[in-house]
Amino acid sequence: MGYFLTFEGPEGAGKTTQARLLADWLEARGEEVFLTREPGGGLPWLRQALLSPGAPHPLSPEAEYLLFSADRAEHSRRIGEALARGAWVISDRYLDSSLAYQGYGRGLDLDWMLQVARKAAPLKPRLTFLLDLPPEEGLSRAKEKNRFEAMDLAFHARVRQGYLELARKEPGRFVILDASRPVEVIHEEIRRAIMPLCGP
Amino acid sequence: MGYFLTFEGPEGAGKTTQARLLADWLEARGEEVFLTREPGGGLPWLRQALLSPGAPHPLSPEAEYLLFSADRAEHSRRIGEALARGAWVISDRYLDSSLAYQGYGRGLDLDWMLQVARKAAPLKPRLTFLLDLPPEEGLSRAKEKNRFEAMDLAFHARVRQGYLELARKEPGRFVILDASRPVEVIHEEIRRAIMPLCGP
Repeated sequence: MGYFLTFEGPEGAGKTTQARLLADWLEARGEEVFLTREPGGGLPWLRQALLSPGAPHPLSPEAEYLLFSADRAEHSRRIGEALARGAWVISDRYLDSSLAYQGYGRGLDLDWMLQVARKAAPLKPRLTFLLDLPPEEGLSRAKEKNRFEAMDLAFHARVRQGYLELARKEPGRFVILDASRPVEVIHEEIRRAIMPLCGP
Repeated sequence: MGYFLTFEGPEGAGKTTQARLLADWLEARGEEVFLTREPGGGLPWLRQALLSPGAPHPLSPEAEYLLFSADRAEHSRRIGEALARGAWVISDRYLDSSLAYQGYGRGLDLDWMLQVARKAAPLKPRLTFLLDLPPEEGLSRAKEKNRFEAMDLAFHARVRQGYLELARKEPGRFVILDASRPVEVIHEEIRRAIMPLCGP
């Protein structure tokens, strides 16, 4: 039986790399893994519209969140199907990204966001790995600027504080990782956190 | 000062025609009119994805409603701007379409839909003209089948009953019109309903 795991944090923190390493490790142990990401995990044609700096603009935070939520509703359905057949699911971003970016970052009402999420994100991750990094560092690491990376530093500082606050509220789900350390050190810490979920 | 008016009902009932006639009549009286429609009134690039039978499929009712809601959140902002400058706003479809199609038609939870609508559709129409027609008749009148027209008759019967129930709940907002009558007769009834809102 697999679990639903998510990676969160700013661009450039190594989410994609760590998700891949974890998927490889689980697969080497004989597990089936569904490695996925947002946006685009449910409605792939939306990913471009949501990330590209040249996408139709400007989007209000409400519309932006509702588009992410539409994608997430479909994504959740696929995640549920994978879990039902016993696979592990590793998603590069999920609901916490919206809470951090549109909620804490753009000031959208969190209570309303959670009401929407009741049906847009009905599945809760068993563990969420938060790759924490000062905004200046994440932005300089990210290879190409998408729409969110083009936002100012104050925005990214709010996003980071938002993530940390989400983690504080659910210490049993979040694992905060200092993302400034070497890839292999972080991967080892993630493996240690996963071990209690793995069979003998 | 203008008001926000909406037209609702199945395809083929004459919503677009009646909206146009009413806009012409108000403009002839010297009013500014913002004539608009959904989907696409907020995010025009979504209209195709939401209506085309060849669009990315299948969409769960949740994802479908969230996409309509994203469009509507942007649309509401534009409607609000038009009202603020004193214009009348006439929209061919608005929130009631979602309640009828995704709610009554596809069985999506209405309470949740209204929670989402708190921010996706914050403006309430002053009057809503429901062009009522038996489903068989509307479908045979519609020129080209979009994704919703391709649904079965039972679906369209639920949509019609949904509209009538919405109208029953808000008799002060809804004006139910028998759409099987001649265009000019219906237009006259709409003008009579509008008169109390018009200046001398």
